[in-house]
Amino acid sequence: MTFSPAARAESIQRLLSPKSIAILGASSDLKKVNGRPLKFLLEKGYKGQILPVNPKYPQIGDLPCYPSVAALPVVPDLAIIALPAKEVCAAVKALGEKGVRAAVIFSSGFGEMGEAGKAAERELLDTARAAQVSLLGPNCLGFCNAFENVYGTFSQYADGDTGAGPIAFVTQSGAFGTAIAALVRQRGLGLGYFINTGNQIDLDFAELMMAVIEDPRIKVAAGYLEGLSDGVSLVRLAERCRALGKPLILTKVGRKESGVRAASSHTGAMAVADTVFDAVIKQYGVLRARNEEQMLDMLEALCQPRRAEGNGLGIVTQSGGAGVMMADRAEEVGLTVPELSGEIQERLAKVMPAFGAAANPVDVTGQFVARPELLTESMVGLLDDPNIHVGIAWLQLMTAHVDTLAKIFVEIQARTTKPFFVCWVAAPPEAVRRLRAEGIVVYTAGERAVEAAAALARFSTARRPTPALPELPAGSSALPVPGPITDGAQDTVTATGWLKAAGVPMAEVALAKSEEEAVTIWRGWGEAVALKVESPDILHKTEIGGVLLNRKTEEEVRAGFRTLAERATTHMPQARLTGILLQKMSGGHVELVVGVQRDPLFGMIVMVGFGGILVEVLKDVTFRRAPFDVPEAHAMLDELRMSPLLDGVRGQPAVDRQKIAAMLSNLSQWAASMQGVLAELDLNPVLVSTEGPVAVDCVMMLQRP
Amino acid sequence: MTFSPAARAESIQRLLSPKSIAILGASSDLKKVNGRPLKFLLEKGYKGQILPVNPKYPQIGDLPCYPSVAALPVVPDLAIIALPAKEVCAAVKALGEKGVRAAVIFSSGFGEMGEAGKAAERELLDTARAAQVSLLGPNCLGFCNAFENVYGTFSQYADGDTGAGPIAFVTQSGAFGTAIAALVRQRGLGLGYFINTGNQIDLDFAELMMAVIEDPRIKVAAGYLEGLSDGVSLVRLAERCRALGKPLILTKVGRKESGVRAASSHTGAMAVADTVFDAVIKQYGVLRARNEEQMLDMLEALCQPRRAEGNGLGIVTQSGGAGVMMADRAEEVGLTVPELSGEIQERLAKVMPAFGAAANPVDVTGQFVARPELLTESMVGLLDDPNIHVGIAWLQLMTAHVDTLAKIFVEIQARTTKPFFVCWVAAPPEAVRRLRAEGIVVYTAGERAVEAAAALARFSTARRPTPALPELPAGSSALPVPGPITDGAQDTVTATGWLKAAGVPMAEVALAKSEEEAVTIWRGWGEAVALKVESPDILHKTEIGGVLLNRKTEEEVRAGFRTLAERATTHMPQARLTGILLQKMSGGHVELVVGVQRDPLFGMIVMVGFGGILVEVLKDVTFRRAPFDVPEAHAMLDELRMSPLLDGVRGQPAVDRQKIAAMLSNLSQWAASMQGVLAELDLNPVLVSTEGPVAVDCVMMLQRP
Repeated sequence: MTFSPAARAESIQRLLSPKSIAILGASSDLKKVNGRPLKFLLEKGYKGQILPVNPKYPQIGDLPCYPSVAALPVVPDLAIIALPAKEVCAAVKALGEKGVRAAVIFSSGFGEMGEAGKAAERELLDTARAAQVSLLGPNCLGFCNAFENVYGTFSQYADGDTGAGPIAFVTQSGAFGTAIAALVRQRGLGLGYFINTGNQIDLDFAELMMAVIEDPRIKVAAGYLEGLSDGVSLVRLAERCRALGKPLILTKVGRKESGVRAASSHTGAMAVADTVFDAVIKQYGVLRARNEEQMLDMLEALCQPRRAEGNGLGIVTQSGGAGVMMADRAEEVGLTVPELSGEIQERLAKVMPAFGAAANPVDVTGQFVARPELLTESMVGLLDDPNIHVGIAWLQLMTAHVDTLAKIFVEIQARTTKPFFVCWVAAPPEAVRRLRAEGIVVYTAGERAVEAAAALARFSTARRPTPALPELPAGSSALPVPGPITDGAQDTVTATGWLKAAGVPMAEVALAKSEEEAVTIWRGWGEAVALKVESPDILHKTEIGGVLLNRKTEEEVRAGFRTLAERATTHMPQARLTGILLQKMSGGHVELVVGVQRDPLFGMIVMVGFGGILVEVLKDVTFRRAPFDVPEAHAMLDELRMSPLLDGVRGQPAVDRQKIAAMLSNLSQWAASMQGVLAELDLNPVLVSTEGPVAVDCVMMLQRP
Repeated sequence: MTFSPAARAESIQRLLSPKSIAILGASSDLKKVNGRPLKFLLEKGYKGQILPVNPKYPQIGDLPCYPSVAALPVVPDLAIIALPAKEVCAAVKALGEKGVRAAVIFSSGFGEMGEAGKAAERELLDTARAAQVSLLGPNCLGFCNAFENVYGTFSQYADGDTGAGPIAFVTQSGAFGTAIAALVRQRGLGLGYFINTGNQIDLDFAELMMAVIEDPRIKVAAGYLEGLSDGVSLVRLAERCRALGKPLILTKVGRKESGVRAASSHTGAMAVADTVFDAVIKQYGVLRARNEEQMLDMLEALCQPRRAEGNGLGIVTQSGGAGVMMADRAEEVGLTVPELSGEIQERLAKVMPAFGAAANPVDVTGQFVARPELLTESMVGLLDDPNIHVGIAWLQLMTAHVDTLAKIFVEIQARTTKPFFVCWVAAPPEAVRRLRAEGIVVYTAGERAVEAAAALARFSTARRPTPALPELPAGSSALPVPGPITDGAQDTVTATGWLKAAGVPMAEVALAKSEEEAVTIWRGWGEAVALKVESPDILHKTEIGGVLLNRKTEEEVRAGFRTLAERATTHMPQARLTGILLQKMSGGHVELVVGVQRDPLFGMIVMVGFGGILVEVLKDVTFRRAPFDVPEAHAMLDELRMSPLLDGVRGQPAVDRQKIAAMLSNLSQWAASMQGVLAELDLNPVLVSTEGPVAVDCVMMLQRP
């Protein structure tokens, strides 16, 4: 039995903005885990009804305490379950019977506790489904809705000030999440929602975030992930954030293989290959923060309302060296530090003393304390340059000049509409507080300011994927709808036909069942051929010598046919030999590998990379989720470290990137349409000449889920 | 006229630890640049004699003020020059006449001010040399020696507490350096010396650091560089730091080409290719910090006295996710996160609750507040494992438990002799202060703690280069001492002979002046040959078709000789044709490029990389300063991203790394001995087969400086 989507949305709404809250297992000791939610709700002024449930007490403080869920005088919107693990199922059942539709479960002792815990967790989920109760948790710290003063949590975070702000933060980890929430507070940024999903057996990260980003008071979404159980809903979340114009910032641990294993054992969530995760979330406009510090830096940049409409960074600095360091970092993270237009140079030259330079970065030295206009006019001048989209002013210490400087920065902020950050190294704490109170973004390290500026620029300039890709790629015939198909390796002629029809350039192939047929095919083509063993049981043909290239005469074709037939029988006597494949010879001085994999989380993933040793040793490959359009395919090619090979090196001619990009995009659309049946496709190699790419080998595996 | 080294050392000693200080241009306004040194000296309790010099005042405060240097009653050890640029030369002259041997010059208006400034700077240096006065500056903030309360500075840094500590910090930048000094103070670490070198026309970074690291109160050296004018003295400094067992941490801005240009125009210092700088300083054991935050993190790790005797990191964490993040980062920065020995696992299992894991990282969850032994026994247990050399305990917030936690960490610190860091995210400020006061290293972000641990491990485990390399490489005959040589391209036979004698495997070559000679050589060898045009004017032979491979018969050799002679005359009629070079054919499935360049700063630099597209597109090359030994050459090969090619990929056999390493080390020793004459050497390609490497082309350029 499952909820209707509408009922589920309704229960999430009740969970997050309840008019009444029952606390199952409420304690009169407000320091305990089961006492803390009551403490927070009372102290922080929750306006709804609070209903403690515990047979031990007739009342807690001034509140009547009820012996059981059944005894409650009303049906609360939300129940907080702070009971031992073994009592949780019964409580959920009782809630369902009462008509309660949402519960947060603090209790640990479930999936994180080995096999027995996993069994208990399955039972809990079954119970909740039957009872029609939506669950947050178990094994979680709960959540806060700071707008409505809802504290369904025992997190340390709520011990301090929890003033509401524009950030929705959803975290799988309680401990790390609490730390991040506290860092948000330290920065003077506010959390509107803080939600810890814990074991997330029912409501998960994406579903909860999807609900809270709809709140108009929320401007930025931030998430901390340790694993992922549903990539598609993450993609939907990213698309929704984009549609709302709200940045989604994610930190996911488990970048390396070793880390993935540790994360997997820790959370029980599925380990997703980090390279695929990284590629897909960037494809959908998510900003990935590599750790909590970078997340905070990005949050500060994106909580202010101005957006950077390009990649140009303007730097004003009090130290030439700091300017160099920031310009270096800018280049590394995809920003430019443009030269100034002549007009702006002239403007700057008028205020600049002899030792300064009217260039970007502008080095105003320490003189700006005596001459504030140096700093003001330089920064405003830079930001007036059409090629500059975000500004950073770097300074240090200046304990004695906080007043002067605050005035300067407020003036700069008022005189430009472009985003502008202050980077103040070894800043007096009151300076940072004061600037933040004025709505000015402050960092305390140059490279971090630049990275945050890059995130801001990336958010605005990320390419919007074509919302609806054409059903059929241009120039292709109707997509093949495979008729009755068999799981496993597909025969090359059929596979080639499908791909050709989808607009993927494939070397021409034909199957010969006999030597005579081989000769007939060769004669019909009138050109040199490759011969290949064709068998669903022989996927690595070269390993048994099952490929012969460049057969030019009838005798060569005949001899080749016999040789391959014999090799197949000798090396793999049990293999089913379908015939010998003839393929027109192709050439190309660039060798690519192209592939499709059905990712258990994200669905169809297309890969492209350089072949040979480059894919084997350098792993120079890049990924996208299918389908994608041609510009996205160009971006894939640009990401390859060896991409200059496409433009011709060592006297080789350039190849046509457009044709490769079209091939990849067409393939992605076909792959998306084949999601139900295609498990894996390898086009290796794809040879690229000045004529364009052509796949000269194809292994296609089908498997219906 | 120059000083003797002893006189120079003496003047540096007087500069840094003066018994008396004259202040030229002293102001009675203690807020001014020329008043601030006096203020600091008085306030901070300088014990020596202070001698203000300014004709405007009879006295300043209680101190008599002298009208001129000549009028001083004693010869001060140090003069601070706080005068306008145009008065500086005369002042230095007067100081020399008085017998003063050291001065710090605050004044700007020199090399940083264009051509006129540069001319003034040259005059100043000439004056100082003639007057035998050693200079710090000009255009600098001066320096502090906090041990003796010497404040020859007007830096803002001295406005605050400047308690002495174990760090010597020398910085080219005044503004950025002041910021770093303030950050050191914020961390509770102390600077013994803070020196800003400014335009460093006389005393430079390396010379000053070389002096201060000898102070036994100094334990760690830190430097900030924007450019470099003398690489060899930096190498000597690194070697001296190593001999003293004191870490040298350097931040140098200008990592990218664009940055290098900006740095170069900013400081006037020579732009050094950052890749070469980076390789050389690491070769000599310097720890490079990419920015000021990383420098501070490294300083904190290295100011505590314990050293990590290996790369093994043990992590105890309150958050599984934080453990994953740190384990990932550890792998990225060269640490291991070893599995625990059986014995240690058993020990941990005894204290660990059901939900925890007796593995590395250990996740103790939040339970350790109630059960401190969880944290204590886990961390001590990890550090008792012989494969673990440094430990990190990760926790967050815990505002209410600072006392408990401080006690836990003090106990851990006492129960192990290995280095141990606390990483406390969103830490209460008093917790950080308290732990630091107990001598415990604290970070507030997990990845940063791991990076600092990696620096600590790197410092101890960096390979010590063989202090004295053998004069002659093993198995080689006497090094060639070139007789009368000519600058420019050397003939291949001579160059090959020198390199062979030095132990560098070279393909055999001989020069034929005539067709008959070519045939005779070919016949003598009895195998296939390559023919190459030989001319000092034709360095890129292949561009004119000047190379013919694999000539096997007399007729082929004759025809080849004639073809090449004709091509040379046709394509480059003005070129001097020495003859036609015959070379035995060599094979190899791995193609390397090896080279030597005379770097203007560091001297002879040896490079190795993979040839072909890999060097052209991927720039997969690595550098070392010559000479170096075989293990260092192995490290070079390990650094190449494509190094798996050496071990055989795609069915190719492995090649013998030892033979390549020996070739590189031999070449480096020869190159070092040729420093006076060798400008550049290209061995491209070096073909490597299972037999070993052999250079099949050689371009050697000599140039006496």
